[in-house]
Amino acid sequence: MKFVTFRTADSASRAGWLTPQGIVDMNLVSEGELPASMLDFLANQETYLPQALKLEQSGLKPTYSLAEVNLLAPVPHPRSVRDFMAFELHILNAAKRLGQQMAQAWYEIPAFYFTNHQVIQGTGAKIARPRSCEWLDYELEIACVIGKEGKNIRAEEAEDYIFGYTILNDWSARDLQMKESKIGLGPAKGKDFATSLGPYLVTKDELAPYRIGDRYDMEMVARVNGRELSRGNFKDIYYTFGQMIERASDGVTLYPGDVIGSGTVGTGCLLELGPEVHRWLEPGDHVELEVTGLGILENTIES
Amino acid sequence: MKFVTFRTADSASRAGWLTPQGIVDMNLVSEGELPASMLDFLANQETYLPQALKLEQSGLKPTYSLAEVNLLAPVPHPRSVRDFMAFELHILNAAKRLGQQMAQAWYEIPAFYFTNHQVIQGTGAKIARPRSCEWLDYELEIACVIGKEGKNIRAEEAEDYIFGYTILNDWSARDLQMKESKIGLGPAKGKDFATSLGPYLVTKDELAPYRIGDRYDMEMVARVNGRELSRGNFKDIYYTFGQMIERASDGVTLYPGDVIGSGTVGTGCLLELGPEVHRWLEPGDHVELEVTGLGILENTIES
Repeated sequence: MKFVTFRTADSASRAGWLTPQGIVDMNLVSEGELPASMLDFLANQETYLPQALKLEQSGLKPTYSLAEVNLLAPVPHPRSVRDFMAFELHILNAAKRLGQQMAQAWYEIPAFYFTNHQVIQGTGAKIARPRSCEWLDYELEIACVIGKEGKNIRAEEAEDYIFGYTILNDWSARDLQMKESKIGLGPAKGKDFATSLGPYLVTKDELAPYRIGDRYDMEMVARVNGRELSRGNFKDIYYTFGQMIERASDGVTLYPGDVIGSGTVGTGCLLELGPEVHRWLEPGDHVELEVTGLGILENTIES
Repeated sequence: MKFVTFRTADSASRAGWLTPQGIVDMNLVSEGELPASMLDFLANQETYLPQALKLEQSGLKPTYSLAEVNLLAPVPHPRSVRDFMAFELHILNAAKRLGQQMAQAWYEIPAFYFTNHQVIQGTGAKIARPRSCEWLDYELEIACVIGKEGKNIRAEEAEDYIFGYTILNDWSARDLQMKESKIGLGPAKGKDFATSLGPYLVTKDELAPYRIGDRYDMEMVARVNGRELSRGNFKDIYYTFGQMIERASDGVTLYPGDVIGSGTVGTGCLLELGPEVHRWLEPGDHVELEVTGLGILENTIES
């Protein structure tokens, strides 16, 4: 299933799912049995998901056409967002651009940082460039959303804790980030103005056709103003989400509604590509991230 | 006022305040007008605080003696936790111990990172040392709690956005942190197993007697197993909370219930003091952080 959070012209934020015919409002069609927020849904998804599946298969009519709603991020208020750095080529490319050595420690542990979980944007949203930023970048990533509470989860059992996947754009103010990185904390202001998630949250069963061993064969593409700039594949990830979850949950409880980002796929940002391929993002630029099975997450930089 | 969150033997988490005679349950004494959680209180504190003040001054009897309750962190579920690094001496001492140069960029911007806001502990709680950690440390800090939503807040108006202050212990797994720092993200696992806040949240008006200009003259002391190891003063902070709030809120909304940590006061951790003063923390060790006007935050390392 493809879960969404949306708003109609006259409604508050609602939760539901996408069908080929339109959007189903889960709270409405279940006569109140299913909640109106994805965070509440995820907190009880072991009960709610079978109910949602049953409703979906009953062939009910959608509540709205896609044109009648604005999609928000599928989980607009995640409990937390951890972002990893799990693609080797991204690190190699970025280190080369910055004239740095690749840190050997990267091969020893999947590392992450906590980013601001209170600045989540959905597809279609305008992204404000920070006022002191001139080097605005996108980052092409995949995120998984946790659907089950757990601690000290082993990589091989982590699949049970993943509810589904979505696209993540880890907007980056490279000039702010570079200054912060010299102090050895973060990134924080280099990243915390906006993170996009969407367009929908795809349950893991829908991605089974793309599964190869413990990875997924899913193309990842970024376009700016219609021009393809980045292309990679989810299967090239060095650390699996299982390994990332093992790391994140070591001694720490993960909760339903926690989000875990993969880090940028190789070539998946302007920093890696360099000015000979494309300038930094500017107001009015339109950025699309497309991933096999996960749809297109698109945003425009605010003028 | 000194706000607390507490639990009695047979109750869920409750919010209230401390008086010399005991604990007042705010929801109970207000007959439901005041909420049962500090996060809900903070979200509407501009309405609730005058009501609480009036009740406090009416001389009502406390609901419980202090012995009848367990204090939790005053805000057990903050919306987010940013931790800064605002004391110069801490950075100088730590750099010397690690054989590193002090980063010049530190003098240009107050830098922070987001830490895990879902692992908050109160006074009296046992702290579990991460299983892969052998270099466990405390960090003696002060935190402010945001009481008003705002964005692009200037340092000179930041006081309006601060609800109050509490002590923060930023527990640190130095071995994990050092490995992460080589990769250039975080700290994350070096910090995210526990952060202590407490014992209570002191409204800023109570700290007026200690105010000098835009700083506070408040002694900060850490003791391990009764032995004083760290002593500093809040007035020596290089970046004020006003400056930190200006930085944090640049292009980003701060919400009531967000927590901002000062970073470690000079000499306020074992890393700075070195093995000639004290070994790393071990199971059974008792750590007390005491700050003028803010009380004593004490925790024991779990055996």
